[in-house]
Amino acid sequence: MDNLGLLKSISKPSPTKIILLVIDGLGGLPNPETGKTELESADTPNLDQLATKGICGLIDPISPGITPGSAPGHLALFGYDPFIFDTGRGILEAIGIGFDLQQGDVAARGNFCTVDEAGLITDRRAGRISTEKCAELCQLLDGLVIDRVKILVRPVREHRFIAVFRGWGLDPDISDSDPQQLGVTPMSITALNPEASMLAGLANQFITQAKTILAGYHPANMVLLRGFSKRPQFPTMGAVYKLKPAIIASYSMYRGLASLVGMEIIETGASIEDEFTALKQNYANYDFFILHIKGTDSAGEDGDFTRKAKVIEQIDSALPRLISLEPDVIVVTGDHSTPALLEGHSWHPLPVLLHSKWCRPDRVGEFSESACISGGLGRLSATQIMPLAMANAMKLTKYGA
Amino acid sequence: MDNLGLLKSISKPSPTKIILLVIDGLGGLPNPETGKTELESADTPNLDQLATKGICGLIDPISPGITPGSAPGHLALFGYDPFIFDTGRGILEAIGIGFDLQQGDVAARGNFCTVDEAGLITDRRAGRISTEKCAELCQLLDGLVIDRVKILVRPVREHRFIAVFRGWGLDPDISDSDPQQLGVTPMSITALNPEASMLAGLANQFITQAKTILAGYHPANMVLLRGFSKRPQFPTMGAVYKLKPAIIASYSMYRGLASLVGMEIIETGASIEDEFTALKQNYANYDFFILHIKGTDSAGEDGDFTRKAKVIEQIDSALPRLISLEPDVIVVTGDHSTPALLEGHSWHPLPVLLHSKWCRPDRVGEFSESACISGGLGRLSATQIMPLAMANAMKLTKYGA
Repeated sequence: MDNLGLLKSISKPSPTKIILLVIDGLGGLPNPETGKTELESADTPNLDQLATKGICGLIDPISPGITPGSAPGHLALFGYDPFIFDTGRGILEAIGIGFDLQQGDVAARGNFCTVDEAGLITDRRAGRISTEKCAELCQLLDGLVIDRVKILVRPVREHRFIAVFRGWGLDPDISDSDPQQLGVTPMSITALNPEASMLAGLANQFITQAKTILAGYHPANMVLLRGFSKRPQFPTMGAVYKLKPAIIASYSMYRGLASLVGMEIIETGASIEDEFTALKQNYANYDFFILHIKGTDSAGEDGDFTRKAKVIEQIDSALPRLISLEPDVIVVTGDHSTPALLEGHSWHPLPVLLHSKWCRPDRVGEFSESACISGGLGRLSATQIMPLAMANAMKLTKYGA
Repeated sequence: MDNLGLLKSISKPSPTKIILLVIDGLGGLPNPETGKTELESADTPNLDQLATKGICGLIDPISPGITPGSAPGHLALFGYDPFIFDTGRGILEAIGIGFDLQQGDVAARGNFCTVDEAGLITDRRAGRISTEKCAELCQLLDGLVIDRVKILVRPVREHRFIAVFRGWGLDPDISDSDPQQLGVTPMSITALNPEASMLAGLANQFITQAKTILAGYHPANMVLLRGFSKRPQFPTMGAVYKLKPAIIASYSMYRGLASLVGMEIIETGASIEDEFTALKQNYANYDFFILHIKGTDSAGEDGDFTRKAKVIEQIDSALPRLISLEPDVIVVTGDHSTPALLEGHSWHPLPVLLHSKWCRPDRVGEFSESACISGGLGRLSATQIMPLAMANAMKLTKYGA
């Protein structure tokens, strides 16, 4: 039986509440000068106290050595095996910018690119045009209608955009136009099954029209499309866990990912304080909360060790506001590591702590990568966080007689 | 390859002997006053010495957060993945009371229930009648013969009983009559495949006759049946491991589960001392023993922290008798945790220790939940105990050239 099937068969509603605090990119690498990671360098008395009273461990978002993107990292935290619950690239980009996807929409990820007079690709990223330029070009392409299908085009960042095909009966099972190499022409899009031939034809027509429209806009004089996909139909957390779940996140990507599994979105301001305030104001209305903090990951991506540690200290300062709500289960972890030294996501396992009345505390007295190695949770897959949180909230019955 | 397939391909007979001491419900939670679990509160010099000489770890019976019933908990310890080797509810109940199942028998779990004049269920448990009353009512129903199929009815506990259909060609693939809700009539049983239509018809006739017989026995004036199942055909431990295995257990449930995997049953008295005596008397006749102690689980279920610790001390006192037999491998663990604080099975991992000449000892000097966190076996699935025991007994050849 898969993880979700098992959990669905043994979960039960209860009045208990769970808060999962996701510190994006939490895990780090030691500063060569001090030998301490960002988390270990930060002054975190509240997290340390919670670690003392709770049980700690290390999680692998996917498996040892594998660096996750945001989608698999979060789906795993929600308990959804990211290899089973796959999300198309186009849909992920649309979710990432908070695009309002409707039933039947097919989204593709687009690049503005440069082609020469023979139509051969000379730069797959059109010299990384500015996001402002991208937005201007998207307006030229947005709203085209081909055979009663409307194509919505929105900027993402630099040369990247999304194209959303809105109409009836569109099957996204078509090939990419992006050849992922230079010196060749963009590829003609083909249907990968007979039902998808309509969309393949539409996509090719769109690309032809886009080429004409963009002819005078060198270096962004052509588009490349890939990752055609529809919003997937995942089982909801309500159906699997019998929870009423909600997310508080200031970035649209995470709200979008949470909505894929049926979480409600709580409105929040952008700051850490705003998010904790939103939690308090909505605490009575749900029994499962994800509080998502982005600043740690952003600082890590920027290679800013000090700023990442500072964001962790801000979270630690706000933590008593969360603890004072007295949830039955508190889990603090992240979706992956983002060491400032690597300026990006990494494969390193990251600390997790769980606090509940029934958690069997271990001897860990500090929330850090080093200390969590010897925690009572041991080394876990991220998909095991939800079963543990549910068990500690007394929301699971036993398996088998 | 699955676990059993792999082990079957590399196991070999040898004169070495393995004893697996199963302390049912071994794992616990700390007493709030002392911060120590039942095992940590008990005085266990012999277990601690064995832990010092051996290697320790923590096992998850199923997976983190999942609380096992007795059947999956034990099957996992025997090395059988409980999701693959599933056992029907009716058969488990029959095994639990030590019913002598014969080839072809189909067992169902039954409830005596209460119906009103319109036939609607008003109490699914007939006010939890006494076990004595249940036995009296079972006698009224026992031995009915319908179309040459005999129906044997035996009490389990309170309102629960088993009905065993004995005849030729019975396919158990039929629906339940128990609607699992009040205010409706019991459901008519239907065949879930064409071959099962005979049993479905018989079961409905039995229920009709039972209703007539019980008419004057309010509140137990009707029956509900569910979980129709046959004794499953599992590969035997003899075939998989090339062992001659036997179990010593004072409770019929565990003897029954062991018999599902082909273990022989050694007669024993009920006390811990009796079980150790039975082990000594039969030590020459087998090469694999499960010595199952129930008292820890019973005390945990009763919420009796002190008694559970005392039972552990009794086991510790008897342990030198087991050690003096000088088995090649000794494993001490349980099938799951039963913390007295929770008065029931729980999801918490539980300690395991393995002692053999070849076990590569770790630094753990005490058999306890806290100490085993940092043991050399790390964190294991219960299904990995048998391969480790077999390896340490030099009963496995290498895998691959």
